[in-house]
Amino acid sequence: MNIAIVGAGAMGKVLEDAAVRRQGTRCVGVIEPLQGLRLRDIRERVDVVVDFSHPVNLNRIEEFVREAACGLVMATTGFSQKQEQQIRELAQLVPVVQAANFSLGIAVMKRALEQITPVLQDSFDMEIIEKHHRNKVDAPSGTANFLAQILNPDGAYRLTAGRQGEKKRGKEIGIHAVRGGSIAGEHTVIFAGEDEMLEIKHTALSKKVFALGALKAAEFLYEKLEVSRAGGEKAAGLYSIEEVLFS
Amino acid sequence: MNIAIVGAGAMGKVLEDAAVRRQGTRCVGVIEPLQGLRLRDIRERVDVVVDFSHPVNLNRIEEFVREAACGLVMATTGFSQKQEQQIRELAQLVPVVQAANFSLGIAVMKRALEQITPVLQDSFDMEIIEKHHRNKVDAPSGTANFLAQILNPDGAYRLTAGRQGEKKRGKEIGIHAVRGGSIAGEHTVIFAGEDEMLEIKHTALSKKVFALGALKAAEFLYEKLEVSRAGGEKAAGLYSIEEVLFS
Amino acid sequence: MNIAIVGAGAMGKVLEDAAVRRQGTRCVGVIEPLQGLRLRDIRERVDVVVDFSHPVNLNRIEEFVREAACGLVMATTGFSQKQEQQIRELAQLVPVVQAANFSLGIAVMKRALEQITPVLQDSFDMEIIEKHHRNKVDAPSGTANFLAQILNPDGAYRLTAGRQGEKKRGKEIGIHAVRGGSIAGEHTVIFAGEDEMLEIKHTALSKKVFALGALKAAEFLYEKLEVSRAGGEKAAGLYSIEEVLFS
Amino acid sequence: MNIAIVGAGAMGKVLEDAAVRRQGTRCVGVIEPLQGLRLRDIRERVDVVVDFSHPVNLNRIEEFVREAACGLVMATTGFSQKQEQQIRELAQLVPVVQAANFSLGIAVMKRALEQITPVLQDSFDMEIIEKHHRNKVDAPSGTANFLAQILNPDGAYRLTAGRQGEKKRGKEIGIHAVRGGSIAGEHTVIFAGEDEMLEIKHTALSKKVFALGALKAAEFLYEKLEVSRAGGEKAAGLYSIEEVLFS
Repeated sequence: MNIAIVGAGAMGKVLEDAAVRRQGTRCVGVIEPLQGLRLRDIRERVDVVVDFSHPVNLNRIEEFVREAACGLVMATTGFSQKQEQQIRELAQLVPVVQAANFSLGIAVMKRALEQITPVLQDSFDMEIIEKHHRNKVDAPSGTANFLAQILNPDGAYRLTAGRQGEKKRGKEIGIHAVRGGSIAGEHTVIFAGEDEMLEIKHTALSKKVFALGALKAAEFLYEKLEVSRAGGEKAAGLYSIEEVLFS
Repeated sequence: MNIAIVGAGAMGKVLEDAAVRRQGTRCVGVIEPLQGLRLRDIRERVDVVVDFSHPVNLNRIEEFVREAACGLVMATTGFSQKQEQQIRELAQLVPVVQAANFSLGIAVMKRALEQITPVLQDSFDMEIIEKHHRNKVDAPSGTANFLAQILNPDGAYRLTAGRQGEKKRGKEIGIHAVRGGSIAGEHTVIFAGEDEMLEIKHTALSKKVFALGALKAAEFLYEKLEVSRAGGEKAAGLYSIEEVLFS
Repeated sequence: MNIAIVGAGAMGKVLEDAAVRRQGTRCVGVIEPLQGLRLRDIRERVDVVVDFSHPVNLNRIEEFVREAACGLVMATTGFSQKQEQQIRELAQLVPVVQAANFSLGIAVMKRALEQITPVLQDSFDMEIIEKHHRNKVDAPSGTANFLAQILNPDGAYRLTAGRQGEKKRGKEIGIHAVRGGSIAGEHTVIFAGEDEMLEIKHTALSKKVFALGALKAAEFLYEKLEVSRAGGEKAAGLYSIEEVLFS
Repeated sequence: MNIAIVGAGAMGKVLEDAAVRRQGTRCVGVIEPLQGLRLRDIRERVDVVVDFSHPVNLNRIEEFVREAACGLVMATTGFSQKQEQQIRELAQLVPVVQAANFSLGIAVMKRALEQITPVLQDSFDMEIIEKHHRNKVDAPSGTANFLAQILNPDGAYRLTAGRQGEKKRGKEIGIHAVRGGSIAGEHTVIFAGEDEMLEIKHTALSKKVFALGALKAAEFLYEKLEVSRAGGEKAAGLYSIEEVLFS
C-alpha cells in the first residue's frame, strides 16, 4: 500500500515514521501545502491519502483523490458544514474514513458514553476537560467537540468554553481546553451528581497512537479498493473509525 | 415503611440520618451487635432490615428476617461461600437486595465495564485503584472485588494486591488499596495499552450516596411486600441493585 | 467565645453545626442579610463575626464590628479594590483574619507553589483547574484567583478563563472553572513542560474543612482580644490564615 | 564530549537518540553487558559513562571508569548497601552523579515534599502511587522508594507495598505499583487528612525527559573534568541531580 501524507507538522512526521516501520506500507510523499507542495507532484501511484493538515486544503485534496480514485483518511477537524457536505459527496466516488480521533480508546469511550449518558443526564451535570500541548492551534480540540456531541446529540445543552463570572445554567456543558508543554492529548468527561461523580478519561501517551489508527484506516480502505478492483463490492463510502477498529 | 439498621458505625449513623429526613420512612432501631443489641428487642414492626455491619452477624439477621417475614437490604461484604449460599436460601423466603455498592454511579460503571472489557482486554492491561478512609477494616474494598469480577468473570486473570519486587505477569490485575484521612470512597479501573490509557473513576463525595441507595433498595422491597400482601406477585427473591435503580 | 455568622447558605449552616460541636464556642446568631436579618438584632455579646456571605454586606458588617469592637473572620471573596482598602482600615481598629480559603491544605499548597514557581516558570506552562458544585455563584473561585496570584505575583502573565478558537499565548495562565453536582471544592495547579508535568491538587472532601479553619481563625482572634483586654499586646491587625495555622 | 552508554534496553536507545541530536555530544558506544559487550572494547576516548542498566554490572563499570579516569552518571537503582559504599568510594577518585530520577520535575517535587511533609505528617496520612509500563522489572520503582525516603527520613513509618485484608496502621506509608501498557512513569504522593487531601503528581510523558537529564548530568561532569584538567578544582566527588539542575 502506497500512502501520501498531507501535513508536515509534528503529527505528519510521526505518521511517516510509523508508516516506514509498517510492513507492506510505503510512504510515497509528505506534502506540506504551506510550503507550496502539491499531491500531484508525487511521481508514484498513491493508494490512500492521509490528511492531518487544515480545512483550507480540502479542495486540492478532493481534486487529487477524485482523479487518482484513491482512498482518503480524513483526520483533519474543524470543517464548515459546506465542507462536511463536500466530503460526503466525495465519499460517493471513493472510500473515505473520517474521524476526529483515530485511537481505539476514544472509539471505546464513545460507546461507553452512549450507554452512560441516557442513564445519568437527568440527575448528573456533564463537563469536559481536554489537555493538549502548548502549540495546538484549535480549542477546544476536535475530539472534545466530538465527545460533546455524544453527550448532547439533540442540542438540548448549551456548550460553553470556560466560565468567567457566571453560574452554571441548567442545561450547560462546560468544555475546558488546558494547554501546556508537550501533552499528547487527554480527554475527560465528568458526570457530577449529588454526592458522587463518574469520570471517563482517555490519555494518549504519544502521537503514535493516532498514527497507528490512521494507518489501520488506510489499510481498511486499501482492502476495500482491492476487493473493488477484483470485481467485488464497490469501495466508495463514508466509513467511521468504529467500522475500521471493530470490524 | 419502618426500617431497622444493623451496624452503628459511621455508615449506620449516616443511614439513620438519611432515613429520618426521608418522607414515609421511619427508623425504628439501630442495632449494634458488638454492644449486645438484638433485632428482637425492637418493639415496633420492622418492614425492612438494612445491614451495614459484618459477616459475623448473618445468623441472627437471618433468624429475625425469617420470623418477621420482612425484607433485607444486605450491604455487608466479605461473606464466605457458605454464607452466600445462606443468603440465597433466605431469598427464597423473603425479598433481599444484595450489593457491594449502593450508588447509581457504580451501577452505571458496571455496565460500562461490561461493554468495554471484551473490546480492550486483549491489547490493554487492567488495574484497579481504590481509596478509602484510614479506618476501613477490609482491603481491598468489597466494591473493588466486585469490579475485579466484572473485569475477570471467568477467572482467567490472577488478582494481586500490591507488588513488591516482581514484574507484572501476562494475565494479572493489580488491585491497589490506598488508605488515608476521611476519603469516602474512590474506585478507578485503568485500561493501559500501547501509547494510550482509558480510565473510569467513581468518586463518592460522602457516605450519604450509599445511604440513599440503600433506602431506595428498602423502598423497592417494601413495595414488593405490599404487592404480595395485597395478593399480588410473591415478594421473595434475590434482587440486584441494578433492578432497584434501573427499573 | 461567642460567634455570629453572616450568611445562612450551605456554608453558614455547616459553620453553625461545627461551632455547636466545638467546646467553648457558642453560636449566638446566624444572620442572613437577604432576609433582612441584622447583626444588631443579636441580643448577646459577640466576640467574633464570621462572614461567609457576599461583598454587598461589607458596610453593615464593618459598622457592627467597629461598634462591638469584636474580631472579624472574613471568608467572603470578590471585593473591589476600594472594599479591600476598607477592610485594611477596619483592621487598624479590630483584629481581622482575611483569607480566600481556610483549609490547612491550601495554606501548605501556597507555600509549595511559592517555592516551585520560580524554578519551573521559565520552561513550564502553568494552568489552573478548579471544580465546584453546580450552584456556586462565582467563577473562577476566590481560591483559584488566589492561586493565580501566587503563580503570577507581578502580573507578567495574562489570565484567561477558558479558551475558544485561540492558541495559548506565550505568557498565559488558563483558569478553568468546572461546575457540577455537589463537589465541595478541588483546585489543581498544572506545570506542563517538555515531556513532563508536575501537578499539585487540593481536594476538600466536605465544607467542614473550611468551617473548622474559620473557627480556628475566630479562636486566634479571640485570644488576641483576651490578651489585649488583659492589658497585653494590642489585638488590632490584619492577619493571614497562615499566621493562624502555622503559629 | 564523548559518552558511552551501559544498557541497551528501551532507556539506552532513547538516550543514544538524544545524544546524537545534542550538539557537542558524541555517543561512542552502547554497551549491553548481557550480550557480552564490554566498555573496554570501545576504541575511542570516553569522557563520561552513563549507566542505565542493572546493579550486577557495577564492578566492571567501576573498573573501567577508574582506569579511564572519566565521569560516571549512575542512573541504575536497587544497589545493595555494600554497592552504595563502592560508589561512594569510586566518587573519591572520579566525578559521579547518582540519582533515582533525572527529571527536573522530580527534583522540584523533592523540594516541595521536604517543605510540606513536616507540616502535614502529624494530621495527614501519606501514600504513594506509581505507574509504569508492563515490562518494568522492579516494583516499587526506584523513584517511589526515593520519594518514600523523603516522607520518612528517620524510618518512623513502616512502608507497605499493597494491602490485603489488613487495616492501615498508625504510622504506615502504602506504596502502590501500578503496571500496564507503555506508561513512561507517573508518581503521586497523597496527603490525606480529615476532610481534605493534598496530592503532588509527576508525569513523565516520555523516557526522553530522563535522557535529557542524564545528558545534562554528563555535561556537568565533563565541565568538572575540563576545569580539573586545566589545573582548576578537583573534579572527583559524588554530586546529586539537584546540583546539576539548580546550579
